[in-house]
Amino acid sequence: MELDTGATAWMLMSASLVLLMTPGLALFYGGMVRGRSVLNMMMMSFGTMGLVGVLYVLWGWSMSYGSRSVGGVFADPFEMFGLRGVVTDEAGEFVVSDGLPTVVDVGFQATFAIITVALVSGALADRVKFGTWMVFAGVWVTLAFFPLAHMVWGGGLLSDAGPFASIATPVDFAGGTVVHINAGVAALVLALVVGRRRGFGREAARPHSLPLVMLGAALLWFGWFGFNAGSAYGADGLAGLAWVNTCTAASAGVLGWLVTEKLRDGHATSLGAASGIVAGLVAITPAAGALSPVGSIALGLVAGAASALAVGLKYRFGYDDSLDVVGVHLVSGLVGTVLIGLLATDTGLFFGGGVGQLVVQIIIAVIAIVFSGVVTLVIALVLKATMGWRIPEEDEVTGIDQTAHAERAYEGIA
Amino acid sequence: MELDTGATAWMLMSASLVLLMTPGLALFYGGMVRGRSVLNMMMMSFGTMGLVGVLYVLWGWSMSYGSRSVGGVFADPFEMFGLRGVVTDEAGEFVVSDGLPTVVDVGFQATFAIITVALVSGALADRVKFGTWMVFAGVWVTLAFFPLAHMVWGGGLLSDAGPFASIATPVDFAGGTVVHINAGVAALVLALVVGRRRGFGREAARPHSLPLVMLGAALLWFGWFGFNAGSAYGADGLAGLAWVNTCTAASAGVLGWLVTEKLRDGHATSLGAASGIVAGLVAITPAAGALSPVGSIALGLVAGAASALAVGLKYRFGYDDSLDVVGVHLVSGLVGTVLIGLLATDTGLFFGGGVGQLVVQIIIAVIAIVFSGVVTLVIALVLKATMGWRIPEEDEVTGIDQTAHAERAYEGIA
Amino acid sequence: MELDTGATAWMLMSASLVLLMTPGLALFYGGMVRGRSVLNMMMMSFGTMGLVGVLYVLWGWSMSYGSRSVGGVFADPFEMFGLRGVVTDEAGEFVVSDGLPTVVDVGFQATFAIITVALVSGALADRVKFGTWMVFAGVWVTLAFFPLAHMVWGGGLLSDAGPFASIATPVDFAGGTVVHINAGVAALVLALVVGRRRGFGREAARPHSLPLVMLGAALLWFGWFGFNAGSAYGADGLAGLAWVNTCTAASAGVLGWLVTEKLRDGHATSLGAASGIVAGLVAITPAAGALSPVGSIALGLVAGAASALAVGLKYRFGYDDSLDVVGVHLVSGLVGTVLIGLLATDTGLFFGGGVGQLVVQIIIAVIAIVFSGVVTLVIALVLKATMGWRIPEEDEVTGIDQTAHAERAYEGIA
Repeated sequence: MELDTGATAWMLMSASLVLLMTPGLALFYGGMVRGRSVLNMMMMSFGTMGLVGVLYVLWGWSMSYGSRSVGGVFADPFEMFGLRGVVTDEAGEFVVSDGLPTVVDVGFQATFAIITVALVSGALADRVKFGTWMVFAGVWVTLAFFPLAHMVWGGGLLSDAGPFASIATPVDFAGGTVVHINAGVAALVLALVVGRRRGFGREAARPHSLPLVMLGAALLWFGWFGFNAGSAYGADGLAGLAWVNTCTAASAGVLGWLVTEKLRDGHATSLGAASGIVAGLVAITPAAGALSPVGSIALGLVAGAASALAVGLKYRFGYDDSLDVVGVHLVSGLVGTVLIGLLATDTGLFFGGGVGQLVVQIIIAVIAIVFSGVVTLVIALVLKATMGWRIPEEDEVTGIDQTAHAERAYEGIA
Repeated sequence: MELDTGATAWMLMSASLVLLMTPGLALFYGGMVRGRSVLNMMMMSFGTMGLVGVLYVLWGWSMSYGSRSVGGVFADPFEMFGLRGVVTDEAGEFVVSDGLPTVVDVGFQATFAIITVALVSGALADRVKFGTWMVFAGVWVTLAFFPLAHMVWGGGLLSDAGPFASIATPVDFAGGTVVHINAGVAALVLALVVGRRRGFGREAARPHSLPLVMLGAALLWFGWFGFNAGSAYGADGLAGLAWVNTCTAASAGVLGWLVTEKLRDGHATSLGAASGIVAGLVAITPAAGALSPVGSIALGLVAGAASALAVGLKYRFGYDDSLDVVGVHLVSGLVGTVLIGLLATDTGLFFGGGVGQLVVQIIIAVIAIVFSGVVTLVIALVLKATMGWRIPEEDEVTGIDQTAHAERAYEGIA
Repeated sequence: MELDTGATAWMLMSASLVLLMTPGLALFYGGMVRGRSVLNMMMMSFGTMGLVGVLYVLWGWSMSYGSRSVGGVFADPFEMFGLRGVVTDEAGEFVVSDGLPTVVDVGFQATFAIITVALVSGALADRVKFGTWMVFAGVWVTLAFFPLAHMVWGGGLLSDAGPFASIATPVDFAGGTVVHINAGVAALVLALVVGRRRGFGREAARPHSLPLVMLGAALLWFGWFGFNAGSAYGADGLAGLAWVNTCTAASAGVLGWLVTEKLRDGHATSLGAASGIVAGLVAITPAAGALSPVGSIALGLVAGAASALAVGLKYRFGYDDSLDVVGVHLVSGLVGTVLIGLLATDTGLFFGGGVGQLVVQIIIAVIAIVFSGVVTLVIALVLKATMGWRIPEEDEVTGIDQTAHAERAYEGIA
């Protein structure tokens, strides 16, 4: 198939949009922490952009999409190390596959790896050595993200070439398992291994800048159009449907969260609106190509409400998932992945498709949870025993921006 | 006509750009209010993104572009309720029209509905119940926006299929009447019905963060490329002309406003630069496909200067249009809509086209003003008599962020 | 060749992205200065967007890409004054060249002119009359930028039609010479002519808002995809390669800067991460189409480290290049332009291409330095002798936002 310049244009743009999501996340997370640790929070995202952007070119693409699969779990990192043979063929022509230059796909996928790692950092506010985080980022993307991308999208165990496809084709349009469940589980494991911030549950840790949070959520919404509608790999009706479903679910996520809050607390908050956007977007991620727009309204409402209720769990169970990666990404990631089994217009239970899709969706969610949980736990414990995760307690009091980065976020604004 | 993937790519991107405009507006407006009401200001935009995003899918598209027109004023909301039959045909194939999947057009149009409603909120800073705003948003988009979109773009009264087309084809490329005059008139009506803020005209209400205002204006400019160049519905020369005209008019709007300010007050301000951007963009909106780039310079200069002069009117006449929706959107919307009659390169008076275009442009502007004014007035008075618009005066003093949303925008920054 | 809608879509988007870079730069620069001069810093960018946006339509395109070249140095400004004959042909059809409407290319090029001028302002924090800056912007873009664009991209002296092409084809993919060396040299000259800020080298001038700096850097990164991948003038493999190289070099720039900082100072800072992004992006700008992704890693690392070391030079040599335009844009612009001679996969020395490419790259860099230096010096000295550059010293103490723009950036945030 020859080059489709329209599809290529949309994928170049989608890759750009997804890259912007990570700074968007840095603002979303950064606004939520206190003024003395916003820079460290943002640096976990920006450092990830530096490291994972390089690693993806070196072995990320090869491990995810290489042809030499190791048991359907990951592919040989050396097959296309440094993108050897990926960009141009032996004649020096750009490699084109399904109408798209492969190098464009490489760029698009790299941005997914970056944002997924950055998502995890939300569990680690205020208290983690920057060096340990950077090592974690490099190891985790290699051992958890690239393999799961291979399993789901690279023709591995959880793909339509895997063993469960005999029940129904597993559906993860843009990353419910690979990105959100994966990051959410990792955040939960790290919150448990790293331990709580000083004063967790006793002192209020109010967001130092809600306008930053809202700006971050807006950039995430904007970028998510690339994330989801880009996952159609074309500029066509499917991309359009994914676009509309993404927008609609985000809108419904806002409504779901704000109504839940209003009923429970008596107020609709701006933090709730921003979080509802993200919850709706997370839930529609795996489902954006499979639902109708009306189904996306339902999914967004459920996700917004579910995550609004779930973010309180950390206080009940005592794990310091500081910025609610679990409550938002794990919970709404599960909502989206599993409800496909009910709401998919062609195979969902509510549309007469039988129970097969639902079963498969639950299977891939559970496998993703177990895989991500075990891999993250091992990495986290090894780092705990070697480099150590925590900064000294007095540095938490002073503020990690000053002790780890020798900077203050704001000077003389008042 | 088969699918044009290039056009589709550009429309997917344009829809994404226009969606980003509403958070851009939230920052633009939010920066202009005091630190104790910024969240409420932003929440009026974000709440609109939640509600209108859902309503558009339910009945917005059907009322705007349905085939069962009621007198050329609006179309049957139930014909395509929930986008029934819009996304795919009976064979399950994506519906394509003029080379573009219809679902992409749905996404694009939804973002226009969202931003238009959000624009209105600029008149209501500091003093309005959030619940009343949300009800207003849902009712007004249904009774004012969807009908006007139908009239102008959906083949209704003010379109080239309407009665005035016998004089000349009415020109509203991207929303001078539907978006800007509509929102500007609604803002004026609401300012009058809702009444003034406590201290209006006596206390200075200086912007709490001008960098936020400038960031918001920048995102509006960026997003406006989708708004205007996307309104070409293709990736072609017309889109390119609209792009260049949009950029040029925004640039000229800055110059027009800054020079006016400098001559009048002795200073060129950053608030003026940001406002000049918006004035230029508003004016070029209806005209982006009809003018030459040099004509766009003239239009932008006029709009920047006119709006710079018009924003003082609220103090003279005593209506509290807090953030100058009237002075910027109504005035520059009128400037753009009417000057098409002079500056259009094919039909304008200055280009030998006679007076017909000018007459038609004035007619559609007047009808938009009357329609929007009456509908908004009825809605506003009903809400005043039922839910009520105003928060208690002591809450204005405390700050609406705290009383309505239980939040403070900033904590411990200094 | 008929219209390529995919290429057109990508170029419309690229132009939008590059336009966004200037507000991104305004935030990047604005965050770095003190709270009492952030608005002035941003206004130098926004004023440039106003003025240069208009001038480009009037004579910028004609001087850069006109057919009546004056000695290969610049083209006749009157040939296509006001875009006469550029947008549509005599039959009223849009002019299309190489598959792209020419008006789209005009928009794309205009955004390059804007950002290049705005870059220069980083040398002038806190101390320059706004009126003098605006006059400088208009004169410099006319006498320095448009000519250099003509020389390199418009078929002039430094292009593949020039005298040096007999050695090897000069490579400046997206503006290493035209944009970065040009702006960097101008900044150095202005820093010397205008003189130092009050207290330079004695008082710490810490960034007033590092989150703004990081946001600005993120918008620059995002916009740079249009800058570089748009410079392929198509939606194809070359655009994809430029995209991946751009992303990879930015990532590597972060690593290069942070590692250098960590080794030298013991801390990795957020200002370093933001600056490393820009250094990597600057270096890859001329090279984005010529290197492999692995070569881009090398280039980004070198640029990040080189600029991290170079920003200290201003204190040693005593020129107040306030926000390091020289250290980042001149140094990394040179790194990128020259290292093409080593790293280009087809003609570079390391790839068996001989020394010709390296020689040519050095030649075009040196000519750009000399040309930009001389032109800027003349303009700067004339303005010094006429309008004057500096605000009164007491205004520097009070803060230029208040004295020049009658505004304060922040009110009552604390």
